[in-house]
Amino acid sequence: MNPDISRERENASFNLEILTNVLDGGAEKTNRRREIESLVIGDPDFQHEDLNFLSRSERYDAAVRKSAQMILKLREYGISDPEEIYSYKTVVRGVFQEPLGVHNVMFIPTLKSQCTAEQRKKWIPLAESFHMLGTYAQTELGHGTHIRALETTATYDPSTQEFVLNSSTISSIKWWPGGLGKTSNHAIVLAQLYTQGKCHGLHAFITPIRCMKTHMPLPGVVVGDIGPKFGFDEVDNGYLKLENVRIPRENMLMKYAQVEPDGTYVKPPSDKLTYGTMVFIRSMIVGESARALSKSCTIAIRYSAVRHQSELRPGEPEPQILDYQTQQYKLFPLLATAYAFHFVGQYMNKTYHRISGDISLGDFSELPELHALSAGLKAFTTWAANTGIEVCRMSCGGHGYSRCSSLPDIYVTFTPTCTYEGENTVMMLQTARYLVKSYKQARAGQQLTGIVSYLNESQSRIQPHSVSSRPTVVNINDLVSLVEAYKFRAAKLVEVAAKNLQLELQHSKSNEDAWNNTSIDLVRASDAHCHYVVVKLFAAKLSEIGDKAVHSVLSTLALLYALHGVAQNSGDFLKAGLLSVSQLDQISQRLKGLLLEIRPNAVALVDAFDYRDEMLNSSLGRYDGNVYEHMFEWAKKSPLNHTEVHESHNKYLKPLRSKL
Amino acid sequence: MNPDISRERENASFNLEILTNVLDGGAEKTNRRREIESLVIGDPDFQHEDLNFLSRSERYDAAVRKSAQMILKLREYGISDPEEIYSYKTVVRGVFQEPLGVHNVMFIPTLKSQCTAEQRKKWIPLAESFHMLGTYAQTELGHGTHIRALETTATYDPSTQEFVLNSSTISSIKWWPGGLGKTSNHAIVLAQLYTQGKCHGLHAFITPIRCMKTHMPLPGVVVGDIGPKFGFDEVDNGYLKLENVRIPRENMLMKYAQVEPDGTYVKPPSDKLTYGTMVFIRSMIVGESARALSKSCTIAIRYSAVRHQSELRPGEPEPQILDYQTQQYKLFPLLATAYAFHFVGQYMNKTYHRISGDISLGDFSELPELHALSAGLKAFTTWAANTGIEVCRMSCGGHGYSRCSSLPDIYVTFTPTCTYEGENTVMMLQTARYLVKSYKQARAGQQLTGIVSYLNESQSRIQPHSVSSRPTVVNINDLVSLVEAYKFRAAKLVEVAAKNLQLELQHSKSNEDAWNNTSIDLVRASDAHCHYVVVKLFAAKLSEIGDKAVHSVLSTLALLYALHGVAQNSGDFLKAGLLSVSQLDQISQRLKGLLLEIRPNAVALVDAFDYRDEMLNSSLGRYDGNVYEHMFEWAKKSPLNHTEVHESHNKYLKPLRSKL
Repeated sequence: MNPDISRERENASFNLEILTNVLDGGAEKTNRRREIESLVIGDPDFQHEDLNFLSRSERYDAAVRKSAQMILKLREYGISDPEEIYSYKTVVRGVFQEPLGVHNVMFIPTLKSQCTAEQRKKWIPLAESFHMLGTYAQTELGHGTHIRALETTATYDPSTQEFVLNSSTISSIKWWPGGLGKTSNHAIVLAQLYTQGKCHGLHAFITPIRCMKTHMPLPGVVVGDIGPKFGFDEVDNGYLKLENVRIPRENMLMKYAQVEPDGTYVKPPSDKLTYGTMVFIRSMIVGESARALSKSCTIAIRYSAVRHQSELRPGEPEPQILDYQTQQYKLFPLLATAYAFHFVGQYMNKTYHRISGDISLGDFSELPELHALSAGLKAFTTWAANTGIEVCRMSCGGHGYSRCSSLPDIYVTFTPTCTYEGENTVMMLQTARYLVKSYKQARAGQQLTGIVSYLNESQSRIQPHSVSSRPTVVNINDLVSLVEAYKFRAAKLVEVAAKNLQLELQHSKSNEDAWNNTSIDLVRASDAHCHYVVVKLFAAKLSEIGDKAVHSVLSTLALLYALHGVAQNSGDFLKAGLLSVSQLDQISQRLKGLLLEIRPNAVALVDAFDYRDEMLNSSLGRYDGNVYEHMFEWAKKSPLNHTEVHESHNKYLKPLRSKL
Repeated sequence: MNPDISRERENASFNLEILTNVLDGGAEKTNRRREIESLVIGDPDFQHEDLNFLSRSERYDAAVRKSAQMILKLREYGISDPEEIYSYKTVVRGVFQEPLGVHNVMFIPTLKSQCTAEQRKKWIPLAESFHMLGTYAQTELGHGTHIRALETTATYDPSTQEFVLNSSTISSIKWWPGGLGKTSNHAIVLAQLYTQGKCHGLHAFITPIRCMKTHMPLPGVVVGDIGPKFGFDEVDNGYLKLENVRIPRENMLMKYAQVEPDGTYVKPPSDKLTYGTMVFIRSMIVGESARALSKSCTIAIRYSAVRHQSELRPGEPEPQILDYQTQQYKLFPLLATAYAFHFVGQYMNKTYHRISGDISLGDFSELPELHALSAGLKAFTTWAANTGIEVCRMSCGGHGYSRCSSLPDIYVTFTPTCTYEGENTVMMLQTARYLVKSYKQARAGQQLTGIVSYLNESQSRIQPHSVSSRPTVVNINDLVSLVEAYKFRAAKLVEVAAKNLQLELQHSKSNEDAWNNTSIDLVRASDAHCHYVVVKLFAAKLSEIGDKAVHSVLSTLALLYALHGVAQNSGDFLKAGLLSVSQLDQISQRLKGLLLEIRPNAVALVDAFDYRDEMLNSSLGRYDGNVYEHMFEWAKKSPLNHTEVHESHNKYLKPLRSKL
């Protein structure tokens, strides 16, 4: 054990295990999580070479192998609770992905939710026994977020009772689905349904794409891997071009909409249920933001505790780089953010389960708010984590660029969350739509409830004063007072967006033009709203914590999170008259004080996330702090070191001498 | 040619060629650059498979081959002007790197500048004929930026007139040098010189590491590749552990310091010349920031012109995504930044050459300012470009994640500039040291000259007024007035940092502690200073431009750059009383207007950067806009598509079925 990092742990002011339990949601959950982790970590079947040393084809091979093994092991251990499966898989995968991910997360659930009873009986056993290997083919080369414009067609032919599937333009080729390229033999294809000469919009069709025996592509199917990406090397994201591929009528998923044998189309009763799945996945992503950022902070903070550099005081030994104020200012606000997002993720998960209970009882009343919240928070947290991971990586100096740090892999694995499941800017605008609607309702005298209820007050409180005449009411040392400040800032920015939208409507050609011409303001309003929600939920979490020492250290983090956000957005707070210039100066100084308060607990605060070395897979983030030894051992295994003299030397460099 | 992108080009309000000439520094330079580019692009020897389809060993092989070919071709074509060599190499490499880069850029120049006449005669011919293949080994596992603490030792043994080189601790292993792992047979090793029982600090030693015949590592030398990184796959960054390696006394580079045969150490007269090289490389990096960002903008803006998505007006065709205000707000400020940095790069280059003329005449008077400027601007521009590249990538939706977009490669190739040649935060603090020193001189009544002369005014102009009582003087439509505003912001933040430093000194244990406790403020001061310099240089460039239409479009970009920076840092401007709240609202609206003004010229403004398709190497950024066709063609070549059925199917997935 590196003595620096041991000393850090001795200095912690709180009991680590209590904080870990808070993060897990109870001691029992901590124990069960650890049990599951040990199942993977102790399992020789999951030991393998660092994937960074393999070619893409080898990585894919290793990932398929692990996918297959996971399935067997989960059954062997009898793990069936979805959260436990999720935990187990998270450990196996590390920062990598599985080619069968879409089969498990999208293909089977879609079959379960959109098949008729008869269809379920036929397909589900085939999928669960992996005779069918499936993916979910929605996105096309030309269209992602705007699904109404997808071009693939499924035209019903009553003479044979078949659908004829076509992707006739280049932009209609299905593109991106995970596991589509090489792994799957079936795809749920989303296509525009044509029957009796009319288009009925997007529907889902079970489409065989490869032979279930030989695995060769079927006639009319052009399928393959879309090529290397920024990360996800081990997944065969694929393309699929369908040329007059015929499938039986029964392959349309018919629980809701139907096509009768003669071609008559029967409308679905409602589409709110699919809406629910989307909300669930976005809520889960908030938790992923917390996880990616907390891993990155663990690596960067542990490394900063063992790395020594430069002189702080002449003649004294080189300080740990964690003692530099600039390093603390990079990392501690991110640490606070990781905690904040973790608690927001817990809240979203709980809320989703509560509301989905209501939904199954037919009560959709809270769904719009949850939808708006999950969209905005998905964008807010993924953007912040995305930037934060890179700050962590760059705070490790040169060594952060090495794949042995794991930080490059964490980044490339995480960054797609900014785009998939709803592009972030589009998400922010969806939230804005809800905010503007709520604002208008409040102005029309309706009393808002839930998280937007603050817009009720906006009529009376937010007045167009000049900065100087605003009363200064915020107590910068009081989290409750800061939550209020964030609330007023959000109210103010929603109001600005709504008013600018109103102004635009007076000289725009259409509502849509006006919306577009206000979208910068609308995104800012959503951002401020989400920021308020995060600060509020962090503050609320504190009240649940009984242990005094843990409460104290989390309060410091929450205050840091809140004040750092004020400093980063000081213009908004000044402009809204919520803070005075001298208060801003006080905040700058207070922030420095908070960094010093957190400093002795920094390593313990990342230890509390409880990532085992096998999960971090990082030379820099090792629990024992023996960074350099481990880097050297790792480097020796680099494929370029398999031979002493690389063949290129004799091929190109030696001959060069004689040519000059 | 895609009709959307043709239409964009027809709409441009200015003559493309004139703007390209402005960027190149004259029509003649444009022509010569194009000539050189054509030499590479038409050369079948440089045609090769997309490096993204190759394993790391294959990539290294391809890169060594290209390196060797470049050397031969440059001689064949008689290209010897350093700038022309740089141009040529830039085209060959694209976003990739060459293993012989350090040999050419560091090894040979160091020999030239630090060898005695006798040493030159011996070593340079060997290096220039590639019998010696060299690298520059400074950074160690345990130390980067703080070079005084490097641990490798060279101990003089007068009995044999040899130096004995050792890296005896794990942290003293040389780590990172490019080309060290597999390519080089010599390294210039930076080591602490010990002679006659005394340490004389860091000196450079020519150290043979591999046999010049067999290329096998020499006795006592442990050398290898440090393993995969975030980018730079084709370079063998290496490690080097030296165990009692003996080299002749003559292998120390002795132009300045010397060790005599009996071990007597002779001091160097001055170290200011090496200082100059550092300044030069940092100045060059400013230009690299412009290049990486302008490439990224070219890709993202062209793609945004051909990509259609969603509905803006009901019933109308899907708009180009470049018509969305949020998309414009992401990309156009970055486009303006790319132009700004390009002009700053030109300025730095010119200034460097002017000042290095003075230096060679023994006049070092301007070096400290240039040093401070190059450090700060290196950090300021690389940070901005680093973030900007990722914004460009994410603005392309899912397709930005594909390696065929080239954006991931641009990012991973560029991001190390934030760390190498001086870690960015350290750079900002170096600039801050100069600013604080200048501030103190001004306060002591000294009249400052050069770029910091604005600190002279700070005594009279920056007074501790409250926000409300400040006179509002800035004209937000006038660039000259905005330059003033940036200047006062910088002056204010330098003052805040200097005063906080003063306060800290009163209750800190040492000067160094006080400095550390003020470093957040110091970095902010540097940042504001650099921002001022960039806005000022952009504005100054406008006055050189005669063509009215080009002047007009560049003025719009400059105004966008300046106002966007104000909006992003509005707290500073409000706090300093430079702008009123209502002016900030006007700026928000004005920014939207500027986006619309730039919109019709956006494609032409990236065309003017004049990157040929072969240099961008991006399916999304193609000049002809035929994005999807090209993506499909590219994907088909993906290595995973070399077989229809991947072997993992038969190995793991088929057997799975029978096991369940």
